[in-house]
Amino acid sequence: MDRASRVVVALGGNALQEAGAPPTAEAQLEVVRKTAGFLAEISTKGYEMAIVHGNGPQVGRIVLSQEIASRENPQTPAMPFDVCGAMSQGYIGYHIQQALSEALRDRGREIPVVTLVTQVVVDPGDPAFSNPTKPIGPFYTEDEAKAIAEERGFTMKEDAGRGWRRVVPSPDPKRIVELSAVKRLWDTSIVITAGGGGIPVVEKGDGSLAGVAAVIDKDLAAGRLAQDIEADILLILTEVDKVCLNYKKPGQRFLDGMTVSEAERFMEEGHFAPGSMLPKVLASVKFARSSPGRKAVITSLFKAVEALEGREGTVVTMD
Amino acid sequence: MDRASRVVVALGGNALQEAGAPPTAEAQLEVVRKTAGFLAEISTKGYEMAIVHGNGPQVGRIVLSQEIASRENPQTPAMPFDVCGAMSQGYIGYHIQQALSEALRDRGREIPVVTLVTQVVVDPGDPAFSNPTKPIGPFYTEDEAKAIAEERGFTMKEDAGRGWRRVVPSPDPKRIVELSAVKRLWDTSIVITAGGGGIPVVEKGDGSLAGVAAVIDKDLAAGRLAQDIEADILLILTEVDKVCLNYKKPGQRFLDGMTVSEAERFMEEGHFAPGSMLPKVLASVKFARSSPGRKAVITSLFKAVEALEGREGTVVTMD
Repeated sequence: MDRASRVVVALGGNALQEAGAPPTAEAQLEVVRKTAGFLAEISTKGYEMAIVHGNGPQVGRIVLSQEIASRENPQTPAMPFDVCGAMSQGYIGYHIQQALSEALRDRGREIPVVTLVTQVVVDPGDPAFSNPTKPIGPFYTEDEAKAIAEERGFTMKEDAGRGWRRVVPSPDPKRIVELSAVKRLWDTSIVITAGGGGIPVVEKGDGSLAGVAAVIDKDLAAGRLAQDIEADILLILTEVDKVCLNYKKPGQRFLDGMTVSEAERFMEEGHFAPGSMLPKVLASVKFARSSPGRKAVITSLFKAVEALEGREGTVVTMD
Repeated sequence: MDRASRVVVALGGNALQEAGAPPTAEAQLEVVRKTAGFLAEISTKGYEMAIVHGNGPQVGRIVLSQEIASRENPQTPAMPFDVCGAMSQGYIGYHIQQALSEALRDRGREIPVVTLVTQVVVDPGDPAFSNPTKPIGPFYTEDEAKAIAEERGFTMKEDAGRGWRRVVPSPDPKRIVELSAVKRLWDTSIVITAGGGGIPVVEKGDGSLAGVAAVIDKDLAAGRLAQDIEADILLILTEVDKVCLNYKKPGQRFLDGMTVSEAERFMEEGHFAPGSMLPKVLASVKFARSSPGRKAVITSLFKAVEALEGREGTVVTMD
């Protein structure tokens, strides 16, 4: 590398929580310690890094615990969803910065790891706001759901026969509010930012910001960040080593790479599941197309280093 | 000023929550908006700033809501106290950074305001660990308290006839883990750091860090930070405009200033309440004594600018 290549890493849910593990902070820290080993290996190869993590299960538990507590005690009212997101950034960021610092020191690298509480601007005119799709928090009966919708103005939808849940919009990330601090820090520190996709805020007429109840996809937020801080690589880490066509169907095929045009065709053909592989491919396409020489890589945590070296994963590049 | 004077501001509880206001995030944001106006005025005068805030009521509610939820639902186990502190940093930092950015923009200043999730190292040999004094979370009956002590190993104490509560140690802050990032950022940004006194961690033999259940006094943490980032002024904002001798007693006297030696004598004479004015004076003394030319100022939020200009508050200086 001429200079240190700069990577924005998007960490999937499996990097924070094991399937079937207890939903405790202690269990999370155990998983984060393993994850930190893989991330430290990336740093050891000389890459500069910013890290964006998911927060679905964590913020879900924060919302659920507050809903329960608010029914029992007027001293613990439920907090708005943007604040729950901010709390999850503190919680998860703390674990990652502590565990990653340790993993780096184990490898003889003394690099500060810091977490920035991060707001991400979304457009109040985003079509997502008129069609909320992202379920959050606990399940309710139909009657409970209707009462909540009436009382608190939440949008409630039935979730695949499992009961009713609150749904919030999932708008596109437009701007990382704390971008300048990420830029300032990431040549000397590893920066954890835009956790959970960022705290969603809208910009009012006077330029001030206000939190909104929404979930920004963390891969799209990572892609937005990667573009805006002029990263070289967007590395999206998930459960699989490579992107797959006809996943679990006849003609299944793992991809070593795809161009932006190929990826767009595959998306149109419906190869990728919404809310799962689709936003990862979409984020990759947007980033790879944003400037010549930029590439996106989708792979698993375990293959991250090999994938950065071009020996694993699925690489998305400009045509 | 020859160069921009650099101030570490310690924000008292009244900067985040009004007495008697509902314990909601929305009510907090309203108070934080007012506070932000005063902080923005400091910035307008050309000072560089780092901000340390308290988190007592907020982390208390987080602990309480998790205790309630953990009894009702196995999916929402209570989180360890260090994680609750990290969550409170996310929550409060988010509100301050949003409100302060707005107050700055209203005054024509475009300065980024960022929150760093901050760990603060304490000494496991600190005498505080053998005498936990800081009550946190809900009240219990004696029987409940004994069961909790047995089951979870918490130290429980009776709290002035109001019931039993968990108590945790309040050790001295030794080192701000994320110090280098604060240093890197604060000439271009306003940095919110060491919220609630910082997430307390101990350093293990191999240099790795582990969270502990403890509360670091936020004024002492602000003083530690001010020393370590070589600030010029430690500004401790509280409910009163000036420090007082014989507070609410015959011979009450407000102080315009005191030297380190005078302050030590007043502390010995018992003028200042432990857990209230005492840690503020102690933090001021430590900072003023740490290097020539440094001063600490104790005043109210409303008098902050005048106090920095020497026209208000109580100034603590070296002899």
